[in-house]
Amino acid sequence: MPKLPLLARLLAPLLAPLLAIAAPSVARADALIDNVNGMTLDEKGQVVRFTGLMMNRDGKITYLLSSGQKRPKKVDWKIDMGGKTMVPGMIDGHGHVMGLGAQLVRIDLSETNSLDEALAKLRAYAADNPSKWIVGGGWNQERWKLGRFPTAAELDAAIGDRPAWLERVDGHAGWANSRAIALANVTAATKDPNGGRIERGAGGKPAGVFVDGAMDLITNSIPAPTPRELNAAFLAAQDRLLSLGVTSVADMGTSQNDWLTFRRLADINLLKMRILSYAAGVDTALAVAGQGPTPWLYADRLRMGGIKLLADGALGSRGARLKADYADAPGNKGLTFFSDDQLLNRMIRGSMDGFQIAVHAIGDRANQQVLDAIEVLSDTYKGDRRWRIEHAQIVDPKDLPRFGKFGTIASMQPVHQTSDMHMAEARLGEARLVGAYAWRSMLQNGSKLAFGSDFPVESPDPWAGWAASFTRQDASGQPFGGWRPQEAVTREQGWAGFTTGAAYAGFAEDKIGRIAIGMRADFLIIDRDPLLAAPGDLRATKVIETWVGGDRVWQRK
Amino acid sequence: MPKLPLLARLLAPLLAPLLAIAAPSVARADALIDNVNGMTLDEKGQVVRFTGLMMNRDGKITYLLSSGQKRPKKVDWKIDMGGKTMVPGMIDGHGHVMGLGAQLVRIDLSETNSLDEALAKLRAYAADNPSKWIVGGGWNQERWKLGRFPTAAELDAAIGDRPAWLERVDGHAGWANSRAIALANVTAATKDPNGGRIERGAGGKPAGVFVDGAMDLITNSIPAPTPRELNAAFLAAQDRLLSLGVTSVADMGTSQNDWLTFRRLADINLLKMRILSYAAGVDTALAVAGQGPTPWLYADRLRMGGIKLLADGALGSRGARLKADYADAPGNKGLTFFSDDQLLNRMIRGSMDGFQIAVHAIGDRANQQVLDAIEVLSDTYKGDRRWRIEHAQIVDPKDLPRFGKFGTIASMQPVHQTSDMHMAEARLGEARLVGAYAWRSMLQNGSKLAFGSDFPVESPDPWAGWAASFTRQDASGQPFGGWRPQEAVTREQGWAGFTTGAAYAGFAEDKIGRIAIGMRADFLIIDRDPLLAAPGDLRATKVIETWVGGDRVWQRK
Repeated sequence: MPKLPLLARLLAPLLAPLLAIAAPSVARADALIDNVNGMTLDEKGQVVRFTGLMMNRDGKITYLLSSGQKRPKKVDWKIDMGGKTMVPGMIDGHGHVMGLGAQLVRIDLSETNSLDEALAKLRAYAADNPSKWIVGGGWNQERWKLGRFPTAAELDAAIGDRPAWLERVDGHAGWANSRAIALANVTAATKDPNGGRIERGAGGKPAGVFVDGAMDLITNSIPAPTPRELNAAFLAAQDRLLSLGVTSVADMGTSQNDWLTFRRLADINLLKMRILSYAAGVDTALAVAGQGPTPWLYADRLRMGGIKLLADGALGSRGARLKADYADAPGNKGLTFFSDDQLLNRMIRGSMDGFQIAVHAIGDRANQQVLDAIEVLSDTYKGDRRWRIEHAQIVDPKDLPRFGKFGTIASMQPVHQTSDMHMAEARLGEARLVGAYAWRSMLQNGSKLAFGSDFPVESPDPWAGWAASFTRQDASGQPFGGWRPQEAVTREQGWAGFTTGAAYAGFAEDKIGRIAIGMRADFLIIDRDPLLAAPGDLRATKVIETWVGGDRVWQRK
Repeated sequence: MPKLPLLARLLAPLLAPLLAIAAPSVARADALIDNVNGMTLDEKGQVVRFTGLMMNRDGKITYLLSSGQKRPKKVDWKIDMGGKTMVPGMIDGHGHVMGLGAQLVRIDLSETNSLDEALAKLRAYAADNPSKWIVGGGWNQERWKLGRFPTAAELDAAIGDRPAWLERVDGHAGWANSRAIALANVTAATKDPNGGRIERGAGGKPAGVFVDGAMDLITNSIPAPTPRELNAAFLAAQDRLLSLGVTSVADMGTSQNDWLTFRRLADINLLKMRILSYAAGVDTALAVAGQGPTPWLYADRLRMGGIKLLADGALGSRGARLKADYADAPGNKGLTFFSDDQLLNRMIRGSMDGFQIAVHAIGDRANQQVLDAIEVLSDTYKGDRRWRIEHAQIVDPKDLPRFGKFGTIASMQPVHQTSDMHMAEARLGEARLVGAYAWRSMLQNGSKLAFGSDFPVESPDPWAGWAASFTRQDASGQPFGGWRPQEAVTREQGWAGFTTGAAYAGFAEDKIGRIAIGMRADFLIIDRDPLLAAPGDLRATKVIETWVGGDRVWQRK
């Protein structure tokens, strides 16, 4: 492992919290972690219990120990965990690492209750963050009881000459300061664009808030994040994920810049989690990885193994492609991103070079399109291909059994079900929900199931996802008995979705997802027994320590 | 080291020659290379002789042995070199790795003596190379005694429907086939562009050859090389360099794609040589390396440590920026790429983050501009900065002593002197050549000297460069006594330029450039004693084996 060079020293101010944890972490060696309430799944989905484990200098597990078993006398070091619960690190089968990072480094005003409170928060954020622009959102003048929009002048008074752009909580308006307005060359002479409105003050001067179609006037001037900002964003995302017990993520749609960021930090030993990268499109995969998946890099912490494609949009915005009209929008069947041939061509282009193909499909028509493509391709591209359909939210019951064929994996997000259930009823009507979020049917049809969160669209918290998987209830326990409970999986199956299933979906089942001999020592110490906790308690699980590859990479303070 | 995965297997057809060598190469271990006529420079530039060396499993040198010394009995393996000459691997202080690769994978028609011979060569090349376009050059219809330009139809007959573009030997015309012309949408209706001419046949139809300003009509349609092609180009360049005994290169102007290519191949253990990368501009450095140089990666085989900037153009095209008019072009002083402030800003931007700055400067005015900037910057950016001026070809004698200040390095190319000498006389006149290619003055003024070739502008052969450095004569021994011989360096100083000097210029003097304890075991077995050979014989040096980091990475068949 390289020592921390100049870059790390330059990063030090940003990294202080992370380094503070890294420093006391135990050097890898032949080690015994003892006195745990250990549990994991085996290859068949059965629960295995143990009370200790040993691991070697490569950060791999060498023995699992039960309570009666004798402990070896000679180990380099050992830790007594005092009977706390140990589980495998959680794997998020579908997330967006840099998207989460961007969200985390922006200022969040959603909890502010007055303009003054927001301005104080902005002032503090500006002092702490060296970025050129101050970007964020979450404000709501109604919650502030302001009775009007905030103004550029008010923002100027708080943060001065640094350009700022803050979106309203609903994303339908943005608040700029004078510097941002000047950089965007918006003046009293600028006309309101189509579908947008510039709030104006004396003499027609832009007052600070830009509504809907007028927002682009400012956002087009916001510069792309610098490498320094990207580094900080990644580290913030990694810290958040590790704090929740997520040790590995399938990064869905890695851009070239995302990849360079992962590597920049991995090169100086700051990539602590594992990233199973799916390139944003064929061109990115070819430019980064070339003629096939990269090897596993950095002791299995990074690999570009696949390509992410999108067959349709989302249900909320009626972009999901349906077989029949939206129930609440007659005449609208959603969006088609690719013709059948275009989709096939892209899937072929990636498959030729051995990339795994993961296609976003939310509507039943989009799912059919991808299943059709897989059927065609499976004739030529044989072997262990593990075609992935991402989301697979609304599937025609006729198409459900097709997931069991050609090794197709359903990569689904339990929390989407609890967030979307009412909206899905409106969009589709009751009768067309038979194949919606149909986790149990997927398993029954022989498909492999990988669970994830789709962060930052949803919270990356895997405990909420796990709880939703076997309850079909949201955080408040609604609806009673669960939404379409026939599609719930068991608690163990839900756990598998976030561990062994997500590992398998990423061609990583020989490395992660279980606590077993030969696997990487990725495990969590948590504050409760997740197999016994009531669903509400499972959601409230607190991670105490997170270990990746035999290193303690996060610890609750 | 990762095992060769899928990618390597897919690459196998391209790699056959390289793999054939890699396979029998000896696994690293504690090893003895014995019975050599060993020679190297020490830190002070003195020749050190030895007859054997030992190296360890990390590929580092652990002992140098003289003839009287006892050999250890227990080594993992040893080789008796039969008294052959061993020298350190040569370092090219200024080259363009992917540029060389692109040159090597293109078809070269410069040795063809008839149209039929060229067409046969094209046919064979098309069969061997899967690239979409066939691109190359070197043809000369005069040498072919054709009495006319070749035609698109003749090219069609040889290679059919694959688009092709072949530049004339002088670069002032190109020959396209019908498919290339069709892809470029050039028809009888297309007018000759300014400064260009489309050769035409019946009905004004493009006949195949496009002259000067018309060449862009076709070249704009040639797609960027694919990652497969970039991989092949890199491997071709690496093979060529290793065959010449060049084990390390300062890659001047690494693009983001170049960097991704180096890493793609390094990840599968196919980066055999060492690349000291200087990013093509500040933005590339930030995007790739972020807030400072990358660490040394892949056991010191790759590092982005600096930024390449350009202050002017070249002498041949009168782009070099001079203090007075060109002697052969009154009123012309060459090109200014940056104002003083623009150059300073870029140098500051890189220096802030600890990148080494290397600025191309050929004319005396450009050299003055860079020296001025270094003087300004050295006040703020102290410490071991090793400012580099690339080429430093024409320097005002008044400015020569300034190279000795602030640790400025002159990165020069001996073969440029022998190629350019007559042209330089024409461009500048005799009186202004006092500070031209002034290697000896650089050393006398206390500047460090790094030598290179500027490949593919010149051949990457370091033996020719070394011979030129102390003779100031070209391959035919001209001019008698050497061109401005007062600026020749000694044979040992020339050698240092290609070894210890180039290592120092890349912040790598603790890793490469000498055969000494603790250094990487980068060495050559060559067929003659380079300290005794007459200059013409030195130029003809044949490398027998090339070793990098204790691995034999190239071997003459």
